[in-house]
Amino acid sequence: MPEPADRAIGVFDSGVGGLTVVRALRRELPGEHIVYLGDTARVPYGSKSPATVLRYSLQNARFLLGYGIKQLVIACNTASAAALPDLERELPVPVLGAVLPGAAEAVAASRTGRIGVIGTLGTIRSSSYRRAITALRPDAQVAAVACPLFVPLAEEGWIAGDVPRQVALRYLGELFAALDDIDTVVLGCTHYPLLQPLLQEVARALTGREVRLVDSAGAMARATRVALRGRAALRTGSDGTLRCFVTDAARIDEVGPQFLGEPLGVVEQVDI
Amino acid sequence: MPEPADRAIGVFDSGVGGLTVVRALRRELPGEHIVYLGDTARVPYGSKSPATVLRYSLQNARFLLGYGIKQLVIACNTASAAALPDLERELPVPVLGAVLPGAAEAVAASRTGRIGVIGTLGTIRSSSYRRAITALRPDAQVAAVACPLFVPLAEEGWIAGDVPRQVALRYLGELFAALDDIDTVVLGCTHYPLLQPLLQEVARALTGREVRLVDSAGAMARATRVALRGRAALRTGSDGTLRCFVTDAARIDEVGPQFLGEPLGVVEQVDI
Repeated sequence: MPEPADRAIGVFDSGVGGLTVVRALRRELPGEHIVYLGDTARVPYGSKSPATVLRYSLQNARFLLGYGIKQLVIACNTASAAALPDLERELPVPVLGAVLPGAAEAVAASRTGRIGVIGTLGTIRSSSYRRAITALRPDAQVAAVACPLFVPLAEEGWIAGDVPRQVALRYLGELFAALDDIDTVVLGCTHYPLLQPLLQEVARALTGREVRLVDSAGAMARATRVALRGRAALRTGSDGTLRCFVTDAARIDEVGPQFLGEPLGVVEQVDI
Repeated sequence: MPEPADRAIGVFDSGVGGLTVVRALRRELPGEHIVYLGDTARVPYGSKSPATVLRYSLQNARFLLGYGIKQLVIACNTASAAALPDLERELPVPVLGAVLPGAAEAVAASRTGRIGVIGTLGTIRSSSYRRAITALRPDAQVAAVACPLFVPLAEEGWIAGDVPRQVALRYLGELFAALDDIDTVVLGCTHYPLLQPLLQEVARALTGREVRLVDSAGAMARATRVALRGRAALRTGSDGTLRCFVTDAARIDEVGPQFLGEPLGVVEQVDI
């Protein structure tokens, strides 16, 4: 087993969206080795029950443990919402989820304390963001709306134009109607950063002002740095490697690079 | 083991869409017992690789064999396209897929011999419908377009209004631009019948005439009758039962009845 610092960070997601978190990790921590698993055979998790998402998350985590990881990062918001406490209890390595970093970033960014959250059905139904935000700022008010069509739109590459604009108007219209003076919205799903320019414009059109959109990927990368430094497990330098696994390779070459922001290299398919 | 005729028909689908096929079967063959499995934990199949879809289809079929079925019906077009030959070879019972009945219905309905096919990425990439249609009518011309957003729209219940209309205009616009004089379009996915009124209207708007939309559910039910009668395995009467299994029960109570057209009864969750 290599020295702690030389061991990899394991990252899993329900599919390719988690590569936006890998992208942020590689920018923030260019010395770190990363092993990524995208459960593309069983994607999406967002509309499935917490029990199924927990079962799949445990399988994903155990696969990554086989690579001697020093830290697990759950890139998927739905899996973080459904599985974080169980994974923390069951796994022999520290686990970082998506919800708390995103919630902390939103609380820091908001002046009004009125915060919107958008995510999958599973994430919104879990109320995880609401609990995390009000734990950090008890007087915060939170409105949350599930946006099930954003993931298929992003995966289809329809991130601008009439159709996604109409969809965004409907979902965000519901969000801003539910609570006045929202100044910050958490993008509670790894796919949503691809829609960020559109969401920014639609939020402006609906409210008549700038709304801060918080993407948890950057916050997760910073939280990972803090966690590793605290345990003297940070690997410095800029020669970190990336190894990618998927459970189904169907569209990874086509869709993966736009999430990662760089070429993907060899992607290995595994059956877990 | 009961007499052949009293044994059930096994039907599987990637999710709840296959209940449109169960609905047609129950109307056509009200005496038949039906065991349905919806693989809702791993839905959708449409964007995944043929190898993954084949693996899941074999697991689904083996589960249904445990109920002593006399006939397997693959309700899912994507699974039919990816797995039918393998299932026919591996299973001890006759197997009926979605593609051939739908193709035969389209060939019978078309006057121009110019036929459109819409379906998931997997179904369209497989060229299964194109092959089946030209096998039945060698001079037929076929245009095929994948419509990945129709399934999430149908599952979200957005089957009328601006957003689905824009999406349909884009996909069907592509279809009718690819081939002149299309008079018949195969709805090559179990979810699409829910969008039928909208698709009919959009097809009319795009072509200026009535286009025949062929839904394979009815054709599959009639083909099942022919197959069973041919083996003297038809169960007459009107007291056929329905037993439903899903691999994830998250939204079945909410979404299931609109596909089945009647109350679902008790749905059992299984891990396969």
